[in-house]
Amino acid sequence: MDLRLDHLRRERTGLAEAVYAPGKSPAQCADAVAGLLAGPGSGPVLLTRASAAQAEAAIARSPGAVTGSAGTDESGTPLSTLTWGTLPATGRAALVLTAGTSDLPVAREAAAVLAAYGHEAEVVADVGVAGLHRVLEQQDRIATADVVLVVAGMEGALASVVTGLTQAPVIAVPTSTGYGSGFAGVTALLGMMASCSPGVSVVGIDNGFGAACAAVRILAVRE
Amino acid sequence: MDLRLDHLRRERTGLAEAVYAPGKSPAQCADAVAGLLAGPGSGPVLLTRASAAQAEAAIARSPGAVTGSAGTDESGTPLSTLTWGTLPATGRAALVLTAGTSDLPVAREAAAVLAAYGHEAEVVADVGVAGLHRVLEQQDRIATADVVLVVAGMEGALASVVTGLTQAPVIAVPTSTGYGSGFAGVTALLGMMASCSPGVSVVGIDNGFGAACAAVRILAVRE
Amino acid sequence: MDLRLDHLRRERTGLAEAVYAPGKSPAQCADAVAGLLAGPGSGPVLLTRASAAQAEAAIARSPGAVTGSAGTDESGTPLSTLTWGTLPATGRAALVLTAGTSDLPVAREAAAVLAAYGHEAEVVADVGVAGLHRVLEQQDRIATADVVLVVAGMEGALASVVTGLTQAPVIAVPTSTGYGSGFAGVTALLGMMASCSPGVSVVGIDNGFGAACAAVRILAVRE
Amino acid sequence: MDLRLDHLRRERTGLAEAVYAPGKSPAQCADAVAGLLAGPGSGPVLLTRASAAQAEAAIARSPGAVTGSAGTDESGTPLSTLTWGTLPATGRAALVLTAGTSDLPVAREAAAVLAAYGHEAEVVADVGVAGLHRVLEQQDRIATADVVLVVAGMEGALASVVTGLTQAPVIAVPTSTGYGSGFAGVTALLGMMASCSPGVSVVGIDNGFGAACAAVRILAVRE
Amino acid sequence: MDLRLDHLRRERTGLAEAVYAPGKSPAQCADAVAGLLAGPGSGPVLLTRASAAQAEAAIARSPGAVTGSAGTDESGTPLSTLTWGTLPATGRAALVLTAGTSDLPVAREAAAVLAAYGHEAEVVADVGVAGLHRVLEQQDRIATADVVLVVAGMEGALASVVTGLTQAPVIAVPTSTGYGSGFAGVTALLGMMASCSPGVSVVGIDNGFGAACAAVRILAVRE
Amino acid sequence: MDLRLDHLRRERTGLAEAVYAPGKSPAQCADAVAGLLAGPGSGPVLLTRASAAQAEAAIARSPGAVTGSAGTDESGTPLSTLTWGTLPATGRAALVLTAGTSDLPVAREAAAVLAAYGHEAEVVADVGVAGLHRVLEQQDRIATADVVLVVAGMEGALASVVTGLTQAPVIAVPTSTGYGSGFAGVTALLGMMASCSPGVSVVGIDNGFGAACAAVRILAVRE
Amino acid sequence: MDLRLDHLRRERTGLAEAVYAPGKSPAQCADAVAGLLAGPGSGPVLLTRASAAQAEAAIARSPGAVTGSAGTDESGTPLSTLTWGTLPATGRAALVLTAGTSDLPVAREAAAVLAAYGHEAEVVADVGVAGLHRVLEQQDRIATADVVLVVAGMEGALASVVTGLTQAPVIAVPTSTGYGSGFAGVTALLGMMASCSPGVSVVGIDNGFGAACAAVRILAVRE
Amino acid sequence: MDLRLDHLRRERTGLAEAVYAPGKSPAQCADAVAGLLAGPGSGPVLLTRASAAQAEAAIARSPGAVTGSAGTDESGTPLSTLTWGTLPATGRAALVLTAGTSDLPVAREAAAVLAAYGHEAEVVADVGVAGLHRVLEQQDRIATADVVLVVAGMEGALASVVTGLTQAPVIAVPTSTGYGSGFAGVTALLGMMASCSPGVSVVGIDNGFGAACAAVRILAVRE
Repeated sequence: MDLRLDHLRRERTGLAEAVYAPGKSPAQCADAVAGLLAGPGSGPVLLTRASAAQAEAAIARSPGAVTGSAGTDESGTPLSTLTWGTLPATGRAALVLTAGTSDLPVAREAAAVLAAYGHEAEVVADVGVAGLHRVLEQQDRIATADVVLVVAGMEGALASVVTGLTQAPVIAVPTSTGYGSGFAGVTALLGMMASCSPGVSVVGIDNGFGAACAAVRILAVRE
Repeated sequence: MDLRLDHLRRERTGLAEAVYAPGKSPAQCADAVAGLLAGPGSGPVLLTRASAAQAEAAIARSPGAVTGSAGTDESGTPLSTLTWGTLPATGRAALVLTAGTSDLPVAREAAAVLAAYGHEAEVVADVGVAGLHRVLEQQDRIATADVVLVVAGMEGALASVVTGLTQAPVIAVPTSTGYGSGFAGVTALLGMMASCSPGVSVVGIDNGFGAACAAVRILAVRE
Repeated sequence: MDLRLDHLRRERTGLAEAVYAPGKSPAQCADAVAGLLAGPGSGPVLLTRASAAQAEAAIARSPGAVTGSAGTDESGTPLSTLTWGTLPATGRAALVLTAGTSDLPVAREAAAVLAAYGHEAEVVADVGVAGLHRVLEQQDRIATADVVLVVAGMEGALASVVTGLTQAPVIAVPTSTGYGSGFAGVTALLGMMASCSPGVSVVGIDNGFGAACAAVRILAVRE
Repeated sequence: MDLRLDHLRRERTGLAEAVYAPGKSPAQCADAVAGLLAGPGSGPVLLTRASAAQAEAAIARSPGAVTGSAGTDESGTPLSTLTWGTLPATGRAALVLTAGTSDLPVAREAAAVLAAYGHEAEVVADVGVAGLHRVLEQQDRIATADVVLVVAGMEGALASVVTGLTQAPVIAVPTSTGYGSGFAGVTALLGMMASCSPGVSVVGIDNGFGAACAAVRILAVRE
Repeated sequence: MDLRLDHLRRERTGLAEAVYAPGKSPAQCADAVAGLLAGPGSGPVLLTRASAAQAEAAIARSPGAVTGSAGTDESGTPLSTLTWGTLPATGRAALVLTAGTSDLPVAREAAAVLAAYGHEAEVVADVGVAGLHRVLEQQDRIATADVVLVVAGMEGALASVVTGLTQAPVIAVPTSTGYGSGFAGVTALLGMMASCSPGVSVVGIDNGFGAACAAVRILAVRE
Repeated sequence: MDLRLDHLRRERTGLAEAVYAPGKSPAQCADAVAGLLAGPGSGPVLLTRASAAQAEAAIARSPGAVTGSAGTDESGTPLSTLTWGTLPATGRAALVLTAGTSDLPVAREAAAVLAAYGHEAEVVADVGVAGLHRVLEQQDRIATADVVLVVAGMEGALASVVTGLTQAPVIAVPTSTGYGSGFAGVTALLGMMASCSPGVSVVGIDNGFGAACAAVRILAVRE
Repeated sequence: MDLRLDHLRRERTGLAEAVYAPGKSPAQCADAVAGLLAGPGSGPVLLTRASAAQAEAAIARSPGAVTGSAGTDESGTPLSTLTWGTLPATGRAALVLTAGTSDLPVAREAAAVLAAYGHEAEVVADVGVAGLHRVLEQQDRIATADVVLVVAGMEGALASVVTGLTQAPVIAVPTSTGYGSGFAGVTALLGMMASCSPGVSVVGIDNGFGAACAAVRILAVRE
Repeated sequence: MDLRLDHLRRERTGLAEAVYAPGKSPAQCADAVAGLLAGPGSGPVLLTRASAAQAEAAIARSPGAVTGSAGTDESGTPLSTLTWGTLPATGRAALVLTAGTSDLPVAREAAAVLAAYGHEAEVVADVGVAGLHRVLEQQDRIATADVVLVVAGMEGALASVVTGLTQAPVIAVPTSTGYGSGFAGVTALLGMMASCSPGVSVVGIDNGFGAACAAVRILAVRE
């Protein structure tokens, strides 16, 4: 397979092409990362949802990556997000809230992508609405953030509550956590789409990467 | 059609047989009500979701009904809930909360059924979580109610929030209100089933009658 | 029904409470609008998806509304969006693209809401990807917009294509237009959620209002 | 991860925060249990759906747990429910019925939670409606229970039948047992929601914990 | 349109071709009936779900039909089943049970088809499992019927209960009656497919005609 | 667990209670089989979908079983159907057709159950409609069978074709075989329910046991 | 609305832009047709699914259209397909088969589009597989057609059968006809996608226009 | 199991019977291949989706196969497509486009089938619409291909874009690749069915084999 890399994607869309590891061999991952690093693109190079073997192969070929945890795959293998060429700090910050602790891997993937683009990304976990005081304790941070990401499974109610507490854009990420009636994220997805709070927008299930990309686009509006 | 009335249902289940009007002719409604009133049962006789014609026919044959509004059917015809033989006041009270004003018909149907059994049923509308202060203003009433009914469409997040604020049993009623992504109540139903707040239980979409019946069973535990 | 108006919602969320007309009587619409106008809130007052009767009642009580078309309801009744107290022009602009002409009502509802908040909102219709030259002709405008709304039914492919052509935030609105396999917007919704273009976020089916609210939040980041 | 424990949840909702083991490391389970035991909360501390390793780690750190079986996870690993600080006996009793023997793990999880709160919980298995005499044999116990939990997969018909035999509140728990057309609990869930017996309310699929919490709230009404 | 009538279908399948009225003009209905009556086939000629206009046109051209009620279509128009050439009585009998009175039109369509083939078809309505005594009162008839049809909406639990009470073949017909969570018959269909009672088989939603055809095939085994 | 065996189920329903192995321990299987054999029931004792370990345990305790293959479970473990006390031959015969060879395990489970009740059950595999001559070659057998079972995955079209070729009752069994768009049997299930051939009835996905039970009930009509 | 017509679509895709009438005013239809006729495009101009008012307005402005029936819309209004500038006869022919007579409007829409491009399109209705002899009677025509369109609702089995009888490309069109379990075409769509006959491809529900377009592309391969 | 091989399927349908390996034992695969090779059929013999063990067994018995990769099964086992008796080159060519690299296995299965029938099949991977220049670079090849296969997961937008760029028939293959909201190919399937580009037709999820068969039928039109 000769790679069809999109070196100038950041110039076009503000976001450099990222290498999505699942389904690629370690060698293919290493090739893609090395290819992007060698190209004319200006952006950070990201390898997302990489297994240990994929990460090792990529780092062996292209040292200098920053590595962040990104949970596990379906069979429990730990995954990580790797970044080469982090951009300089922008001074802007996203707030990443999670309803429960099991939403953390998705939140951390989002935070790693935001960090690669030079944005701060503070993760505050476990502020689900079953104990409303927990989210109310964060009310000031929520009100003053530049952009808020809400990562939640089950019924996804946190997105509606948070959106009612801030003027910032809110991006909701449904996650596949939760008992049987969460239907692997579909319940949260539907709930977030139908939110009674105006102005929340939604990305795909467990798509921390996509949510971070949406946030990068929004934070760039400020520049 | 000879009616197969279940006169002693209240003796068996605590709840008298109710006549569900949709799909019955006015004459059939009047027959069923009169038949139950003439029978050996001790409970209130309810005619639910009755059109004007159905209500008139039943009242013409069996005067003395208490009439409450129960919204409209799919084609906009106003419906009502009629009660004959309201039970004496029990001194117990249910709190019926709605997320929006369009959830009111379902809430009112529930309140009419509770009233028929002698329970107070206070309806507080429009406390959806998009403006959290509205539900927080009701915090005391929520904390002290004997049982709480949460009637909500869209994403149904109100059920999770309310359940976190009280020790009382909470019965959630998904409604079919809301924009396209509410999918006629399915989103709210799924969200309530998957609620992160432990101890909420759910009845069918727009089923104010069923929620009230569940509440009547719970309030009877106190006796 | 005593109204539980949320007068200070704009102060809290940047977006004033809007009155969603469907399911309310003309009198209730008029009451809600008048109540919001009489309150302490600073934002524009919006009456969305109003029928002719609802609009008339509201204007008779509260003159001075700007009226925009918002398509028809399920039975073909023309609807409109009314605005009282349009905010001063901000100099910022959203680009609203539609795949087909039948997506226009949703696009116009979004444009009316953006206009109420002082933003320009240029609607460019009928740039669906079946004739790619049509969207490529808009490439410059897409690349330079502050925020882009993509309104599309059927398979919703326009969102993926547009997101690949700009650094701006892209908000996708699935619409219920299209032949039988569009499933009233579900196909477009799923397609937009699963978009291969990173950074698109999605609102509910036909929810032009919600998309505009998300855009207002994003454009406020610039202030 | 610093834990955001909700020590006073029982004071607020009548139910102490429980630790849901799946997705947590043994160490995280042990930390959470120990943290809750050390805190100001008055309630029992529960660790639900724990694997052997998770249970061991928690018990090593915090001895004195009561352990009950809670079936197996998807890969067949046996799970258990652990309780520290069982509350004194209340003298009230829930009846937990199951349609088949494969519904027992969910029933036992519910019973363990009820026991933690001092309530008796009698489990009667295998009374499915295919042999109606089996449920009719339990008619007296069903008629006199304070609250009834019905745990059933397949078509979930037991909930409708039992609700017609008692004045007590009935909480239905759909389970994911059964042949291909049970669709992992969805068929039972839908059937219970649409039950022809008024007054049954439903919790999520396989959610024995949630059903017990609903029952604890109901039994507390008596106090 | 020249008709492609299947005159010898009864010789091949035991069931003559029937004319399904919906979507055909009155003239097309009349043509089809007349064509079948003029052909070499030996079976009864049936016109199913005919509106008044369709029935009139068919009878004007081909007098002598037996007419039975078959409920209403979606817009409330009364429909009927017409039979020409009823077969001689066979002495065999089907029992048609319905859970509620709103299931009657489907039951009556089935009964009309059975009658056309010379079988008795006793309809017993309103024996839903919410009041178990009602179905138990029919226990003898259920145990001795040649074949039993169970017509039920909502959760369809009646099929499971009845199948446990008889050695006869049981054919279940899900109906689209019931509150919002019946999902127009899908809940009953799924419940009947997943029935815990072995030996029940199911036909399509509201398909009284198909259920009767299955019963005709079964009763013919006896000949 | 004390077993709640239904010894007299054959007397009531014509079908003895069967032991469904999945989810039971080998010891539980052996107990249930032994319990049924020791009881007053007259029917054959069946252990369905048993793993090697479950079968061994049951045979060790209760020798003399007839063993038939019943495919594999989801993880590929071979399963079998065991029969104790096969009834004497009835002289009646069912024809079991499969669309493809991968439908054979379900067909064989059905055949084993039919054989236990003394009926012949001829399995003819691989007569799918893609090569219509294959099913046409069986036309005589199809036309003369007492009852026909059609076992098919993918689109399930075989049921419609076969039903048009016989006067016999036809029971369709959707299977979970086939490429991605078969959706694990749902496509076949829906296709069979919506069949254009009148008189086909349907059992659950992969439910060869249930189909055989329906056939046993039908064949008993002849007695 | 200024029209964004795609005059050269036929040059690019072989298919001229067609005007889809639903949702457009009569004036918009007339404008679009006139605009396309006045432009540089070489292809036929089609107005599809036009109501009487839309057709009249278009013909008044642009005389000379060929009009074909295209069934009715959801409310029963008759629709038609109009063609201006039919292309010269190509000598190639498509065979359009329907399972039932209610599939005819979709078949006729397809035939009208094929005719506009100069292809013969023979419609043979009512060859559904419930009476297999009807499709076998067409075997020669099916075997020798250049391309076959199969239009079928209910379970869509005709597509599998026909594809096994010809070497020609087969395009399947699911239709929304049929009883409740056809689910408005979804059952047929899924069945056709999962067809056991290799080489059938599928277009959207009721999309006769799309099927004809696919056939036009295929027939052009011959040129 | 005696094999019911369809030796003359190519004579009837233009496509020889292929052996679908999943679910067959290595010996059954070898038997089926050898049986087809020994028969009177003229076509190539294909063994699709074979594991290493299945391929080895077939080759040991029938040497001389051409082997091509066909991705992996659900558990990651590499699969291959084997061909015996490749037909002579036809000089006609199909273009197989994929949106991403993870769609390649499906594309390669299609290419192997096309090659078996003597057609060239050029696979061009990774031209997804997120970077529109990639597909535009292929514009000439797309415009001049005899037939185009579009293999895409996620939202499947590539099919709409490509269909707008060519007069050739386009066959779309949805794949099960992509994040959580792709729902294992359902999103792509729906999107392709609802495509705004007229003339695209669709095969089942991951069904590269079926798409190639449709293309073989189309290319044969030219002969």
